[in-house]
Amino acid sequence: MVQIKMESNLLGANEMLARQNRSLFEQKGVLVINLMSSPGSGKTTILERTIDVLDGQLKLGVIEGDLYTDQDAQRIDKKGVQVFQINTEGACHLDAGMIGTAYKRLTTGNEDIIFIENVGNLVCPAEFDLGEELRVVVMSTTEGNDKPLKYPLIFHQAQAILLNKIDLLPYTDFSLDRFSDDLARLNPSALLFKVSGRTGEGIKTWTEWLLGVVDKKKIGLNN
Amino acid sequence: MVQIKMESNLLGANEMLARQNRSLFEQKGVLVINLMSSPGSGKTTILERTIDVLDGQLKLGVIEGDLYTDQDAQRIDKKGVQVFQINTEGACHLDAGMIGTAYKRLTTGNEDIIFIENVGNLVCPAEFDLGEELRVVVMSTTEGNDKPLKYPLIFHQAQAILLNKIDLLPYTDFSLDRFSDDLARLNPSALLFKVSGRTGEGIKTWTEWLLGVVDKKKIGLNN
Repeated sequence: MVQIKMESNLLGANEMLARQNRSLFEQKGVLVINLMSSPGSGKTTILERTIDVLDGQLKLGVIEGDLYTDQDAQRIDKKGVQVFQINTEGACHLDAGMIGTAYKRLTTGNEDIIFIENVGNLVCPAEFDLGEELRVVVMSTTEGNDKPLKYPLIFHQAQAILLNKIDLLPYTDFSLDRFSDDLARLNPSALLFKVSGRTGEGIKTWTEWLLGVVDKKKIGLNN
Repeated sequence: MVQIKMESNLLGANEMLARQNRSLFEQKGVLVINLMSSPGSGKTTILERTIDVLDGQLKLGVIEGDLYTDQDAQRIDKKGVQVFQINTEGACHLDAGMIGTAYKRLTTGNEDIIFIENVGNLVCPAEFDLGEELRVVVMSTTEGNDKPLKYPLIFHQAQAILLNKIDLLPYTDFSLDRFSDDLARLNPSALLFKVSGRTGEGIKTWTEWLLGVVDKKKIGLNN
């Protein structure tokens, strides 16, 4: 009983802070994207590729979430993009309070996109609204096509899915048909991008979509 | 403050139930193994391969943990091995209470090994003792060699690591040297098995080790 009450209160507090973040992000006109995946699905590599294409065209920022290390933030820093590291010290997800603090430390006030790289986990991050505009799930072909059915909440909530390591598809038993069918049932409106962080395949389609979303925001079509 | 107190109590209750499980498993002489990994690392496929080799030589049982589905349990059931499905309904790990209940429902009283397949997650399962004798982490080469440093607790606690999808190593940037060095620093006594659930490579070395552990238990060397 007490446990349930606690969780409700924690999630309630998070919702309040997420609303504050969302309101601030709207006011600043920044597109905030929450990237979620299993450990090792390739979020950081995809971010590096995305920065390579978009840097110069858009003003970017990155908030990195990790249990203890700043390895991913160091990789992003090498790209010359503003990055802020959150260490959760063992917690399995980011929350809206952490993002509010990180944003205030990171922002120069004129970013077009801020990417949040969540802790590698397909369960906990799905339950915590960060105030983001878009939720994007990265999963790799090597994880198997059954993941949407096994972790339905995170796939159900996403606006886009990046199916990564598409270059390894021929070496796996991953069924694209079954994956697409399951995803379509769970989340018919989700966009699916087939990409490879390693080879760069499909990254252009993904970044062109991002450019389109930012353009629409700028001319106020999203409001 | 309240949150911390709650977590202490929850973990405290879990510790008590884990001790009860451990005592029961010792009394029954059964080797209980807690298999943990990211989603899609290949735990179920490795279990299928392991059953193929050991079934007939040993009496096996499997407890499957999953958020909502029983897909993995169905795969194990096809192998003709006694299996019990736990659905956590969204929770990111199994706990000792669930395992105690599952064991009582599953057991015929004469198993040599019971495998517990935990929820796919490198964070939460590490914090919950199930009363197991061995903790085994499965990770795949496609997840990248940085995982031990990024998820240190689960790697630090493990008696054995199964590095899966070794057949995909040539197609990745995974550094075996860096992985082995990091693991050796974090957990010098952990055994490392390089395996492929897909091709069967390395499974014999792993199952021979398991047979050895069971033999030692039978002649009382572990007590």
